[in-house]
Amino acid sequence: MVFWDLSILKLDEFRPGICSKVEAGANLILAFMDIAPHREGPAHDHPFDQCGIVVEGEVEMAIGKEKRTLNPMMTYFIPAGESHSWKTDALPAKIVDVTVKQR
Amino acid sequence: MVFWDLSILKLDEFRPGICSKVEAGANLILAFMDIAPHREGPAHDHPFDQCGIVVEGEVEMAIGKEKRTLNPMMTYFIPAGESHSWKTDALPAKIVDVTVKQR
Repeated sequence: MVFWDLSILKLDEFRPGICSKVEAGANLILAFMDIAPHREGPAHDHPFDQCGIVVEGEVEMAIGKEKRTLNPMMTYFIPAGESHSWKTDALPAKIVDVTVKQR
Repeated sequence: MVFWDLSILKLDEFRPGICSKVEAGANLILAFMDIAPHREGPAHDHPFDQCGIVVEGEVEMAIGKEKRTLNPMMTYFIPAGESHSWKTDALPAKIVDVTVKQR
């Protein structure tokens, strides 16, 4: 599907507390994620870039030595190889995320 | 810069009617584009995926045989090789776009 209206998009449970919808092409993976409050993704890294934007709610993100609380209209860019983690506090977060498809 | 706050981000003139800010990593290019009313990007294609989200305003986008007027909270995914074009009408459009970096 080439167009998504995030306000009505049907999501699947990705793992407890995270619902998502994913589109994979030849090179890119586009994902919309709806993350419940009080969830976290532990620090990890991978040899490809990742980036995205928060469209609703709030999420704390750490990329290398930089840490930031992200709200709507804020983007992130995770350079290849850089350690990163994220955490929601009292609010949920809705994020549009893009990564490189691995072959 | 790993984080952007789009509400205060300083943009450069990319071409007449389009101001942008670009971040390129090892594999991905993240761009924020502020497009004036009554502009268009003619149909073209490239052998890699491209995707993004509209965060303000309105843009009409055609991808292959599908055409849609996109508003905030609407995303697009352009599969590799698919012809695509865009056009703003009376409103400007602000878009966050991601493409694959070519080597």
